[in-house]
Amino acid sequence: MNNLAAEEMPSLGKYDLIAELAKGFVQENASTVMGIGDDAAVIAPSSEYVVSSSKVFMENVHFDLTYVPLQYLGYKVVTVVCSDLLAMNAIPTQLSLNVAISNRFDLKAVQDLLDGVATGCENLHVDITGLDITTSRRDMIISASAIGECEPAQLVKRQGAQDNELLCVSGDFAAAYAGLLLLEREKKVFDANPTAQPDFGGQDYLLRRQLRPEARLDIIEALRRENIVPTSMVNVCDGMAAALMQICHASNKGAILFEERIPMTELTFNTLKSFDIVHTVAALNGGDDYELMFTIKQSDFENIKNVQNVSIVGYIKEKEYGCQLLTSDNHQIEIKAQGFSKIQHNA
Amino acid sequence: MNNLAAEEMPSLGKYDLIAELAKGFVQENASTVMGIGDDAAVIAPSSEYVVSSSKVFMENVHFDLTYVPLQYLGYKVVTVVCSDLLAMNAIPTQLSLNVAISNRFDLKAVQDLLDGVATGCENLHVDITGLDITTSRRDMIISASAIGECEPAQLVKRQGAQDNELLCVSGDFAAAYAGLLLLEREKKVFDANPTAQPDFGGQDYLLRRQLRPEARLDIIEALRRENIVPTSMVNVCDGMAAALMQICHASNKGAILFEERIPMTELTFNTLKSFDIVHTVAALNGGDDYELMFTIKQSDFENIKNVQNVSIVGYIKEKEYGCQLLTSDNHQIEIKAQGFSKIQHNA
Repeated sequence: MNNLAAEEMPSLGKYDLIAELAKGFVQENASTVMGIGDDAAVIAPSSEYVVSSSKVFMENVHFDLTYVPLQYLGYKVVTVVCSDLLAMNAIPTQLSLNVAISNRFDLKAVQDLLDGVATGCENLHVDITGLDITTSRRDMIISASAIGECEPAQLVKRQGAQDNELLCVSGDFAAAYAGLLLLEREKKVFDANPTAQPDFGGQDYLLRRQLRPEARLDIIEALRRENIVPTSMVNVCDGMAAALMQICHASNKGAILFEERIPMTELTFNTLKSFDIVHTVAALNGGDDYELMFTIKQSDFENIKNVQNVSIVGYIKEKEYGCQLLTSDNHQIEIKAQGFSKIQHNA
Repeated sequence: MNNLAAEEMPSLGKYDLIAELAKGFVQENASTVMGIGDDAAVIAPSSEYVVSSSKVFMENVHFDLTYVPLQYLGYKVVTVVCSDLLAMNAIPTQLSLNVAISNRFDLKAVQDLLDGVATGCENLHVDITGLDITTSRRDMIISASAIGECEPAQLVKRQGAQDNELLCVSGDFAAAYAGLLLLEREKKVFDANPTAQPDFGGQDYLLRRQLRPEARLDIIEALRRENIVPTSMVNVCDGMAAALMQICHASNKGAILFEERIPMTELTFNTLKSFDIVHTVAALNGGDDYELMFTIKQSDFENIKNVQNVSIVGYIKEKEYGCQLLTSDNHQIEIKAQGFSKIQHNA
């Protein structure tokens, strides 16, 4: 039974297949009343607000299976869709998944993908409450919907940033973009010479950031421990520029971002340099970071120091100021978000 | 601006496009705290339970744009995903949508699709709280997630049917399947002779059932007015046989279904006959009905008569009896659900 096309596995129909695949999923959240196995999932939220987000991931648009392992892909799907909930300062609790496959894929492929989804969900304490497998003509298509919870006082929108508030980001930037450059380069080498072995020595961090990024539940939990409720927040998925413009546009504000404060590993910096790419351009316009960008009150300045992996990168200004980058050599450049006109690059 | 590929419309980026397309959407539910325009939708449910369901619809797998108008397709997407919530006896309240398109589609195409989605949502009093537009390589792919609410005492699962309870269905069956046969026939005629005009005289009902089916919110509302809480319920999307087996399997019961009680219009019957298809086979194994199948206690027999468009088609038996069809000429045939092994036919 290596082929999921219905014609070729009469002994295992769609519903049995889904039941079989779902066997490994553990449900640990008290709010999960019913998971896979009925017409819809049932949730008993313990918070006043429920948040929901969904994304579609398409082969050869959002991912390339020539270099993306299916387990990593499954993990990344969870990261991407849950990051949107975390960016509302909500805690993800349930996830449902639809996978469309053609007869290019065997049962093992689906199991690998679901293994990655299950690991991603376990790490975030998210229950898988929906699973559907359907047919595609050729490409794999994955759709994921996540549900989370938060209390009204905890909800953080893109709107809400005020003058002089501190602009913060989690983690570091452009590593995922540098990882993508490496993978694309090795793909070209491989296409030219299929016996070539990839050369990724010492660059595991960049590959991991591209292939298997983490959702920043740790940051949300740390902010709560420090009693910090950001005044605005956004998921950085299309680069820092798009994220900053989303906050400024929604809040009707401007901002200044200090180039020298943008967190980036030396490995990322050197790799970008080897590709002749200006590192700040990559941080502003690269994608797939899944870090959080948020603003906090000046009065939270002391407490934010207790939150690991957060950098203050600028502050909020009046709207008329616009969004400005202050470069290391003291020039001011207006920030424009390439991500705003790129439909292609959004997963 | 006829082309949505980002390269060809630099003046309108992805985020602006989504904001523009979302302008027509009205939000009427008190539970909708935030809709389109942030990282996730925010809902303040007024019931204890939240239900969620999502589906993916792929061109040339689940729909064929050679004969499916985009407005109807949008409407049908809403019907399909909300029907799953209604089958839990829940009231759909919010819907989010992801549409992937290639440069085969212009802005008008997306607007037509969304017009249909908006009309479907309006009819069900559902708010559109999420919209994403992304790129596909060629085919249109639509993913929809719906959220609804119900109180624990109202929740109806597939599990719960008991011996001697009445088996009920809403509406009539196989009309959508007959509509599909007509459309496929005319497609073949058109392929052979592109100047041919379709011949659908007097068969509007069948086409409507296939192209623009309705979700049975009316039935759920009527059941509530009559204080009837079904003991089990399922959305009939892959034919009556699959639906009955879902109830029986989950409830660990058998059932008897009377062939002569299966509701079907004369038009459906005659059309199926013209295609040499046995009408009961079409009702059992055809798809796209989106009617509800449910069981009620014998004590609800008098009240169910007050619910329009519901037929009693059989009753529940002990598990050992199996699922049996009693034919009009008094033969008993064991029901097997083709839908259980058909991955292809699930939207």
